[in-house]
Amino acid sequence: MGNPKHPVLPNIMIEPKNDLMDKIISLAKRRGFIFPGSEIYGGLANSYDYGPLGVELKNNIKKLWWKMFVQQRSDVVGIDGSLIMNPKVWVASEHLKNFTDPLVECKKCHTRYRADQAPTICEVCKGKEFTEAKQFNLMFKTFLGPVEDENSIVYLRPETAQTMFVDFKQVLETSRMKIPFGIAQTGKSFRNEITPGNFIFRTREFDIMEIEYFIHPDNWEKNFDHWLSEQKKWIKAVGIDEKQVKYIEIPDGERAHYSKRTVDTEFLYPFGQKELYGIAYRTDFDLKNHEKMSGKSLKYKDPQTGQEFLPHVIEPTWGLDRTLLAVLLSCYSESEARSGKEDAVHETEVTLRLPKELAPIKIAILPLSRKDELIKPAEKILHSLQKHWMTQYDETASIGKRYRRQDEIGTPYCVTVDFETANDQSVTVRDRDTMKQDRVKIGELLDYFKEKLN
Amino acid sequence: MGNPKHPVLPNIMIEPKNDLMDKIISLAKRRGFIFPGSEIYGGLANSYDYGPLGVELKNNIKKLWWKMFVQQRSDVVGIDGSLIMNPKVWVASEHLKNFTDPLVECKKCHTRYRADQAPTICEVCKGKEFTEAKQFNLMFKTFLGPVEDENSIVYLRPETAQTMFVDFKQVLETSRMKIPFGIAQTGKSFRNEITPGNFIFRTREFDIMEIEYFIHPDNWEKNFDHWLSEQKKWIKAVGIDEKQVKYIEIPDGERAHYSKRTVDTEFLYPFGQKELYGIAYRTDFDLKNHEKMSGKSLKYKDPQTGQEFLPHVIEPTWGLDRTLLAVLLSCYSESEARSGKEDAVHETEVTLRLPKELAPIKIAILPLSRKDELIKPAEKILHSLQKHWMTQYDETASIGKRYRRQDEIGTPYCVTVDFETANDQSVTVRDRDTMKQDRVKIGELLDYFKEKLN
Repeated sequence: MGNPKHPVLPNIMIEPKNDLMDKIISLAKRRGFIFPGSEIYGGLANSYDYGPLGVELKNNIKKLWWKMFVQQRSDVVGIDGSLIMNPKVWVASEHLKNFTDPLVECKKCHTRYRADQAPTICEVCKGKEFTEAKQFNLMFKTFLGPVEDENSIVYLRPETAQTMFVDFKQVLETSRMKIPFGIAQTGKSFRNEITPGNFIFRTREFDIMEIEYFIHPDNWEKNFDHWLSEQKKWIKAVGIDEKQVKYIEIPDGERAHYSKRTVDTEFLYPFGQKELYGIAYRTDFDLKNHEKMSGKSLKYKDPQTGQEFLPHVIEPTWGLDRTLLAVLLSCYSESEARSGKEDAVHETEVTLRLPKELAPIKIAILPLSRKDELIKPAEKILHSLQKHWMTQYDETASIGKRYRRQDEIGTPYCVTVDFETANDQSVTVRDRDTMKQDRVKIGELLDYFKEKLN
Repeated sequence: MGNPKHPVLPNIMIEPKNDLMDKIISLAKRRGFIFPGSEIYGGLANSYDYGPLGVELKNNIKKLWWKMFVQQRSDVVGIDGSLIMNPKVWVASEHLKNFTDPLVECKKCHTRYRADQAPTICEVCKGKEFTEAKQFNLMFKTFLGPVEDENSIVYLRPETAQTMFVDFKQVLETSRMKIPFGIAQTGKSFRNEITPGNFIFRTREFDIMEIEYFIHPDNWEKNFDHWLSEQKKWIKAVGIDEKQVKYIEIPDGERAHYSKRTVDTEFLYPFGQKELYGIAYRTDFDLKNHEKMSGKSLKYKDPQTGQEFLPHVIEPTWGLDRTLLAVLLSCYSESEARSGKEDAVHETEVTLRLPKELAPIKIAILPLSRKDELIKPAEKILHSLQKHWMTQYDETASIGKRYRRQDEIGTPYCVTVDFETANDQSVTVRDRDTMKQDRVKIGELLDYFKEKLN
């Protein structure tokens, strides 16, 4: 356990290539967005846990995605499938055969390296001889039931897609959808990456948001373009800086073997331009393989024409953790002492300009002093607002400092309860982005925020 | 793969003990709430996938839980941790040592059985001799990195609780909470159960909703009672039949070794009275063990008194899949042809009386005929309402049949567009429970439903 012999187990520390990445990682850790997983035990191989603010941001991204692509569309329905599937699934999908990286092994101490990243001298024992490259499957395997042998091996799913293919017929029949229609899923996938890294960009367990959109093969181009434009709409909605986004047409010979067209959506992270999303035209590759392997018909019969055919698939995929990273990078902004002269600290102030819908905390309640006449109405306001939205109460430190605390976690509204509140039954609402301050009657606060936030 | 030698791999079919269970399983399958996982491959060991309606119901339960216990409380914050943790966690928590079932093995064919459920003659080879019982650990193990040996073994978490203990200090520091406060988490856990069964009651992967509530040891009784009353409130809110719920005080000697008081909340499922939720007073068992194992202080310093102490923990736990099952069982109701004489089919009609907040579909839009003058306003209404709520559009079959389709999936409101709609710009809204029909102006529908649903 934790034996340093294997270079993979210890937490691979992030070495950001410029200071924006440093700042994001530091903010994420300091304010409870994202911590290293199992940190008190020295971590575990680039795993991360989402903290109190991170889980809200992550859930808000998921909710926005589900709203845009499931709730607001009549042609997409969701599912939530098991992470462990019948192992035949991975034979049919060819993951068992093809989802591999080539590895070489030090002949002396047996440490393994990815063939394309192997050192000339073993980093562990300084050995100079390595074996020929051997294929290593990236699926995590485990054993189902009490016997550990070949017959009980199952795998943690390396992608969410196969659940949608395997459940295609059940969904089709129970939802009475007609082609074209899509099945959406969000959830965990696992890949035993040899070199995870770059904070939450590449981890061994990660969340995917994905749609398998089933079509007639004649219409694949139109549907491909539709989903490309939907991904562009999403990027705008979620607050990712469009100027940092590139759409890369993957040429023949470089695409996955099942894909007839692939467009990768890449983002300019501080560590380089790398994948964020993707769209692939998977043809009928998966349904065909599952039909063959399972012996069950997965064909669709068009109710109008009577034509029976195996649907083709357009697959738009969104990495959830990568979305969260790109959102943090895009929404991070710095300015000089914007909180006003009296609070000026000659320091750079950070504002996380998150779309309101994504902000972990929607409203902060800040009584100007700890006097009873302020605390009591402040607590009353808190209880009324937190029935509807995530709110935070903060009575410590100067008001300028408290504003900055909220700015750097992206809270769109701060409600200040002041010494006038008892007289005029009103509070001041400060807008994160415009810095405008509205004086609002306490009795009208709920409607005020319903207007602003819903 | 799928070798019949092992009785564990093939899907264990459900044998419901009475017909309510039959009806729920059939409804769940027929309408797309819950399917057997990997069904085209003959399933996989009592695993299930949530279909289009099931994923909505499951997510709505999760959202209600998060709203009640995280959003609406100032003393609970959430996290979302990795499923794979540093293996030292399971040494400290004693899962590696104690989370076991005793197994016996057939001496002839090596099939294994739980000692307390072993047959007298092996069910596979009819062998009569079995080994002595050996302890079998219920954690799923896998290998992290490219080498499969003892040093790379990691486990899928068998419970969510340990993430909250391991992250306790990070959450405390970043959220600036004061004791008493809680950390909440929902997510997957995995247990390599020898005999899963009873539909989604006992599966090998399942979702837990859980709070670790950190307290001063002097106040444990008060806090225990608080969480017991919160679980009672939850049962009401989620629509579980309170008459089927029993609270069982677990006596000395039968509690988990770490618990000083445990109350199990049991539900009268058709297959017997069994666990639904639990509350345990875990003392400082976990923090103490992690402090010892990690060498890091996990103590809390009271800002008022300056007293430094290891917090104690009250742990309320909710099974999410069991909640969903208990909700389905509680909300299922049958009546005779309630949809009116003209549609009477002399059949029992099913209504799923879900709390509105949980209903997968909130509103169904039902044009009385497929004429353009009805379809057009119906589609316009659909597009306007689905911006806010999950809606479903259905133009097939008789209106009575369509009402019944919606009743049996628990849709609280049906909007009927009829031949008068073009004249009076109004539609009929039918309430699932009261059967009352309101005539509502199309322009006022949004406000009507905001009032009813938000």
